[in-house]
Amino acid sequence: MPKLVDHDERRRLIAAALLRVAAERGIAAVSLRHVAAEAGVTSGMVQHYFSTKDEMMIFALKIISENVAARMAADADTGRGRNPASALVRKQLVQLLPFDEQRAIEGKVALGFHAYAATNPSIAETLRKNNADLRTHLADLIRTAQTDGDIPADRDPLPTATALLALVEGLGTHVFGDHYDAAEALAVFDAHLATVFAAED
Amino acid sequence: MPKLVDHDERRRLIAAALLRVAAERGIAAVSLRHVAAEAGVTSGMVQHYFSTKDEMMIFALKIISENVAARMAADADTGRGRNPASALVRKQLVQLLPFDEQRAIEGKVALGFHAYAATNPSIAETLRKNNADLRTHLADLIRTAQTDGDIPADRDPLPTATALLALVEGLGTHVFGDHYDAAEALAVFDAHLATVFAAED
Repeated sequence: MPKLVDHDERRRLIAAALLRVAAERGIAAVSLRHVAAEAGVTSGMVQHYFSTKDEMMIFALKIISENVAARMAADADTGRGRNPASALVRKQLVQLLPFDEQRAIEGKVALGFHAYAATNPSIAETLRKNNADLRTHLADLIRTAQTDGDIPADRDPLPTATALLALVEGLGTHVFGDHYDAAEALAVFDAHLATVFAAED
Repeated sequence: MPKLVDHDERRRLIAAALLRVAAERGIAAVSLRHVAAEAGVTSGMVQHYFSTKDEMMIFALKIISENVAARMAADADTGRGRNPASALVRKQLVQLLPFDEQRAIEGKVALGFHAYAATNPSIAETLRKNNADLRTHLADLIRTAQTDGDIPADRDPLPTATALLALVEGLGTHVFGDHYDAAEALAVFDAHLATVFAAED
């Protein structure tokens, strides 16, 4: 009897190899051949699952956003009923900062994707959808925190969410460029958030 | 008598061609051959001025930061003695948002440089220096505005400058990716700045 192959598992293994190649050598260096070598499979095997480089890239991007969503959901569960809503907003945003190896790899690759998207409409479309979903999600959390009286009512939820996501994006870009380290980025972020969420009279 | 050649002028002409190639096709597509074609000169001429692609890239990056510095200085002159110091902080930051074609080209290329820097230490070093200079410059402006009583004294200048530069960086990244347009980015930025600079009791 032939061995059953878990196709989704294999696609994920190839995508993980793509992320490592992209993090180490840059998005431009990603090729079917490099990814196959990193994954320890043949180029033919990679082509069996992904017929083009772009198809492989979009799948890898999907994996990143699934990972982000899973970490956010885990944080939401942990916090439920214990943390004030504004602390949850903070935790979700901090999930996007490059604080461990996994997030550093994902963030570095995501930065490469932003540059790559400038000339690749299908990648651009995927990034746009991910960002729109994040903005909506975060705006909802801010609204909940406002209902709880935990974030000042005069902060407009969607623009505030948009600014905080842009802030985290920019801090990540600067951390990857070694302009400062992740600890300093977190301190800057927390001081900023304290100002934005501080009550005014 | 042979015609005198302005070498700096020619280097700038080549760098401008590089920026157009990079904005249109991405940093990865930049080559001596493409840049020469875009500049309307021979490859040999490009190689006469820049012996490697990286040398050419670093020069182009220097041109971008000179342009940013020139625009900031012009704004500082315009504002002197008329605008409150906090308005100057805003104007300098807005200079970094992609509001006209020139800034859009520069910003798009700068984004590509961030990704490219992940695997190119010399480019990374140039970006780091530029960002460090900008942070210091902005922190000084914030300090002046605080002396004038125009920004709350409890905002720590360097972390505040760091956060605002990261915010502008992130907004630029999202505008280039068409997540929202430049006008929305400016509205988000202004609402955020109003919060950060609002007086507290």
